[in-house]
Amino acid sequence: MRATVIHAPHDIRVEEVPDPAVRQPTDAVVRVVLACICGSDLWAYRGESARKPGQRIGHEFLGVVEETGSEVSGLRPGDLVVSPFVWSDGTCDYCAEGLTTSCPAGGFWGQVGSDGGQGEAVRVPFADATLVRLPAEALSDDRLLAGLLTLSDVLGTGHHAAVGAGVRPGATVAVVGDGAVGLCGVLAARRLGAERIIALGRHEARTAIARTFGATDVVAERGEAAVEAVRQLTGGHGAHAVIEAVGTEQSMRTAVAVTRDGGTVGYVGVPHGSGTGLDLSDMFDRNVSLRGGVAPVRTYIPELLPDILDGTIDPSPVFDLTVGLDGVPGGYKAMDERIALKVLVKA
Amino acid sequence: MRATVIHAPHDIRVEEVPDPAVRQPTDAVVRVVLACICGSDLWAYRGESARKPGQRIGHEFLGVVEETGSEVSGLRPGDLVVSPFVWSDGTCDYCAEGLTTSCPAGGFWGQVGSDGGQGEAVRVPFADATLVRLPAEALSDDRLLAGLLTLSDVLGTGHHAAVGAGVRPGATVAVVGDGAVGLCGVLAARRLGAERIIALGRHEARTAIARTFGATDVVAERGEAAVEAVRQLTGGHGAHAVIEAVGTEQSMRTAVAVTRDGGTVGYVGVPHGSGTGLDLSDMFDRNVSLRGGVAPVRTYIPELLPDILDGTIDPSPVFDLTVGLDGVPGGYKAMDERIALKVLVKA
Repeated sequence: MRATVIHAPHDIRVEEVPDPAVRQPTDAVVRVVLACICGSDLWAYRGESARKPGQRIGHEFLGVVEETGSEVSGLRPGDLVVSPFVWSDGTCDYCAEGLTTSCPAGGFWGQVGSDGGQGEAVRVPFADATLVRLPAEALSDDRLLAGLLTLSDVLGTGHHAAVGAGVRPGATVAVVGDGAVGLCGVLAARRLGAERIIALGRHEARTAIARTFGATDVVAERGEAAVEAVRQLTGGHGAHAVIEAVGTEQSMRTAVAVTRDGGTVGYVGVPHGSGTGLDLSDMFDRNVSLRGGVAPVRTYIPELLPDILDGTIDPSPVFDLTVGLDGVPGGYKAMDERIALKVLVKA
Repeated sequence: MRATVIHAPHDIRVEEVPDPAVRQPTDAVVRVVLACICGSDLWAYRGESARKPGQRIGHEFLGVVEETGSEVSGLRPGDLVVSPFVWSDGTCDYCAEGLTTSCPAGGFWGQVGSDGGQGEAVRVPFADATLVRLPAEALSDDRLLAGLLTLSDVLGTGHHAAVGAGVRPGATVAVVGDGAVGLCGVLAARRLGAERIIALGRHEARTAIARTFGATDVVAERGEAAVEAVRQLTGGHGAHAVIEAVGTEQSMRTAVAVTRDGGTVGYVGVPHGSGTGLDLSDMFDRNVSLRGGVAPVRTYIPELLPDILDGTIDPSPVFDLTVGLDGVPGGYKAMDERIALKVLVKA
C-alpha cells in the first residue's frame, strides 16, 4: 500500500510500504477513508521532535474495517470506525480509570514498527478497545465525516484542556492558541457551558472560526499586551479557566498570566523548549493550578460523538484544505507556513 | 511592648517596639498568648527571602482581644481568638470565593508597617473577617491550645495540600517533607479518608509523629532511591495524591516522580531556587497535575476547628520545643539546625 513516511526534517514522502495484516488475534486492519495532519506532526516535520528516518507519520484517521483477528468480537469487516491517536488495551487499571494514554500496552500511530494514519490502511492493535464504531450513513456526508474525524484527536484534546481547566457552566475562559486544538478548546468550553470565552489570536480566518465556535471576545495582541487585554476584559482579574494549546514557553507564560487567582491552566500543547515558561512563585502566590497533558481521547469519544451526530457541535470548520494522499507533503508545507489551518486527507 | 525583629540574616532580636493600637474602626488589638516559629520564617532567617532590616516577624498566633474598633461587631475584649497568617477583608470577591490569600486589602503579618506574631500584641486589620473565636476554656488546656495554634498556618496549609492533591477516601498519598506542614499534611490526608499514606523522611522523631498522625509507611531514602521505594510500595505506579511541603527543586522533582499517572501534586512548600524542578514533558506524558499555593487557611478554620476541639485530630505534637519571647532567637537557631521541629512561643 501507499503511506506517508518521514525521512528527515522537511522530507515527507508518500511511498510504497508493506500492506498491513492481522498479526495478533486482537488486531484489525482498517482501510483509511479520512486522515489529517496535526499541528503536533509539524514538530516532527520541523525536526524539533526526533523521528527515525523511515518512520510513518499521522495519528488521526477514520475508515472501514477490512479484516479482524479471531478475538475481535465487537467489530466486523465493513464497519465504519474512528481511531483515537493512541491505541490501548482496554483492560489495564489505567484504561479502567479512563487514562488510556497511560496504558502500558498502548502506543502511538507512527511509532517505530506501527502504521501511521496518513496512509491507505492501518493495522490496529486491541481493536475492540481502541476503535469506536460510527454510523455507516456518515460515509455519505462529507461535513459530518470530517467532524467525526476530529474525535481522533483535536476535539477530544480541546475537551481535555477544557475539563482540565475546570470549565463549568457560567465560567469565564481564555484560550491561548488559535490552531485546531485551541479552536476545539473554544468549542468544548462552549459545550461545557462557559459564558464568556476569550480567544487569543490574530489570524482573522481562525478567529472567525473561534467566534463561530463560541468565542465571545477575541484578543489580537500578543505577550504583555495580550495579558493586559484579557485582564481588562475580566475586571482586572483574568479568567477562571485557561486553555493552553500551543506548548511553547511563551504561550505557557501567557496562559498563567491571564489566569485569575485560584484558577487553572488546562494545558494540552505538547511542551517544547528547554524551559517550562512557569513562574512557580507567581503560581504559588496566586494559587494557579496546572492540569492537563496528553489527552485520553478514547475515553471522551462516547461523550462527544452523540453531539456531533445530532449537530449540537460541528468541529468540521477546522479543516480548510483537502488533499489526496499524494498531496500530504504539500499539506505539511501549507500548515508549516500557516497557509492552512488543518489539512484533511482523503485517502 | 516587646516583639521579635529581624535585622539581617541570622540576626533576630526581641526588642522594645511601639505598642499597637486601634487605627481603623475595623481593627482589633490582640494580646498574644501563643505564637510559634514557622519553617518559612527560616527562609528570612537564612537570608533567602528578602526582609528590610527592622521588619517584624512571625505570622502564627492566638491570643485575647484587648481592644476593638468601633465597627468591629463580632468580637469583644476578652475573647480568645486565633489568627490566620494573612488578614483579609471578608468582603471582596476572593474572600467570598474562599481565596482569602488573594484579598486585595489583605496582608501578611510582619510585612513592613504591620506587627508580627512573635510579640506581645498585634494590631489586626479587618478583625471581624480575620479572627476566629475559640472557646475560652481552651486557655486552661496547654495541649489543646497548642493544637488550636496550628489553625493559624501549618494545619490549614497541610489541609490545603491534601485538598489540592485530591485526597479522597481510599486514596494512596505520598508526603514529601517531614516538617510541621508535611506532618500536618499526613494528618489532613488521614482526616480526609486516605487509606495509605507514605511519609518520606529520615528523621526518626519526625517519622514517629508521622506514624502517629496516620502514615502507614515511611520511606527514609532520598532522591532516586526514594522514588523507587514509593513505586515499590504502590505496585510500580506511584501515589494518586502527593503532598509537596518543602519548596525546593529537588523536593518538587521527587513529588512529581512519585505521582501516579493521572495524579496530582498538591504543593504548599514556598518555592525556592531559580528553577521549578518541574519536567513539563514528563508531567504532560503522564497527565500529572499541579495544584496548590499559599493556603487560604482562614477559609479552612471553621471546618478544622471542631475536629481539634472534639479530639478527632490533635496536631499539637508538631511542637517539640517551647520558649518564652526571650527565647525566640534561640528557637530560630534550633529550627535552623533541625534540632527542633517547631518552636512554640509563650508570649
